[in-house]
Amino acid sequence: MNDDLREQGPRRVGQVKEVTSLSNPIVKDIKALSLKKARDETKSFMAEGLKLVIDALDLGWTIKILVYSKAGRGKPLVEKVAARTVAAGGLVLEVSEKVMSAITRRDNPQMVAGVFEQRFRALKDVQLGRDETWVALDRVRDPGNLGTIIRTADAAGASGVILIGDCTDPFSLETVRATMGSLFAMPLVKTSVEEFVRWKAKCGGQIVATHLAGAVDYRTIDYKRKPVVVLMGNEQSGLPDELAREADALARIPQAGRADSLNLAVATGVMLFEARRHLLTLGEAR
Amino acid sequence: MNDDLREQGPRRVGQVKEVTSLSNPIVKDIKALSLKKARDETKSFMAEGLKLVIDALDLGWTIKILVYSKAGRGKPLVEKVAARTVAAGGLVLEVSEKVMSAITRRDNPQMVAGVFEQRFRALKDVQLGRDETWVALDRVRDPGNLGTIIRTADAAGASGVILIGDCTDPFSLETVRATMGSLFAMPLVKTSVEEFVRWKAKCGGQIVATHLAGAVDYRTIDYKRKPVVVLMGNEQSGLPDELAREADALARIPQAGRADSLNLAVATGVMLFEARRHLLTLGEAR
Ligand SMILES: [Co+2]
Ligand SMILES: [Co+2]
Repeated sequence: MNDDLREQGPRRVGQVKEVTSLSNPIVKDIKALSLKKARDETKSFMAEGLKLVIDALDLGWTIKILVYSKAGRGKPLVEKVAARTVAAGGLVLEVSEKVMSAITRRDNPQMVAGVFEQRFRALKDVQLGRDETWVALDRVRDPGNLGTIIRTADAAGASGVILIGDCTDPFSLETVRATMGSLFAMPLVKTSVEEFVRWKAKCGGQIVATHLAGAVDYRTIDYKRKPVVVLMGNEQSGLPDELAREADALARIPQAGRADSLNLAVATGVMLFEARRHLLTLGEAR
Repeated sequence: MNDDLREQGPRRVGQVKEVTSLSNPIVKDIKALSLKKARDETKSFMAEGLKLVIDALDLGWTIKILVYSKAGRGKPLVEKVAARTVAAGGLVLEVSEKVMSAITRRDNPQMVAGVFEQRFRALKDVQLGRDETWVALDRVRDPGNLGTIIRTADAAGASGVILIGDCTDPFSLETVRATMGSLFAMPLVKTSVEEFVRWKAKCGGQIVATHLAGAVDYRTIDYKRKPVVVLMGNEQSGLPDELAREADALARIPQAGRADSLNLAVATGVMLFEARRHLLTLGEAR
């Protein structure tokens, strides 16, 4: 693997590389980010779209490589984001449409993509403030579900998403896409059941777990008395007992139809908009 | 195209065909159902899973072909569903694992799949009963979103889903999968803007449209006074004015984060659980 994704120190700046070959080693490294192994090793991921990349820089994310297709050359916003990338010590690549398609695995790729440093917050650094709501997910499996949940958490004004156990990678291309930019706005925490249980004991919040066997109507819970962690079980098996017994409330969403259960992202949305019902108003919405 | 999917009359019954070749004409016809053209021409679609097929038969759907892999031979539930298929004038195929993989486009296919007749309800036949809630979707594009919405409508106790304009096909494999069986339980209507507007004038219900520019907090609407049609705009462009002006209320879900909007399926879920808030209780849930 090329050094461009690995090295931590300063690098040559001020230059734009033009690349048209799929066998260029940097292009190969970026393409490799579709694999979790390469993402883990380099602690990197890719996000597509000019607006998304600008938002990410505005939010303080570290860009390693900016890639734009020839159509972007000379466009003021692209030039500006290229200058910001160089100033941050990143690389800028101008690539052919073919290379952009290969990198993004799309027939009609966006004009701009960025490779960023991954960022997780440590659970011990999560302090629940007044009126805060967090989402905790137990072994979420589906990349699209996870992305949609991160997007939903952002829209509902939640403070972050805690991934418990063996979850799908939040930095996969499919998940990043499904977040529609909210990935950069939502703090993410990766933890184990054991660490979560220890943290829970002193977090000062209430854990509201959604469980098919929950005895409490999700609308009858007092979400105002303490900060809330909405804990959602995995798509196939629901919440394991070791987590369910940590809950301050086992909530259930009444369901009328033949479906066994709501889709995980929809259920999380319904729970979040209930937990934050007293906090969300049209007036306060940005 | 083979006659097996086209013919309407009686056919030979009582026999199980064993098929191991991918070039078998019936197998080819079933594989072709991944294309909208073939689904439209034959008014057929495929659904996977033994439980799903049994549910579909219980709900009165017409099965044209039952396919099971060799692993299913002799299993009582499979035998029973095969007998029901034959009694209904359908074909039964026992196929190799390889053929099952090809038909379902999966590496680890289910043991059973069924080819069913498509079924739409005509909008003129939709009469809104007391306490009924319908979902109307304007040009929904994403197959996964549509499937999740059908599943959510079922879970929330809605009465059906109306597809307005150029929507993605509800009988595509991806959509059918995402409904998790709710496809068979939710009446589907396909209509045009014009027909919807005419129907709306005399349907006796209230149209609650979700619109980014909506002035009304979705929680302040009186969902009890009349049956409700929750009208959702398309993923990219929202609701066109020709539909928005038909609405009795333009609702907005307050949003706090950076995300432009909620995912369509999540927004539909939040709207439906609000519109049916007074109707859904844990006690009444099945
Ligand atoms: Co349990
Ligand atoms: Co408008």
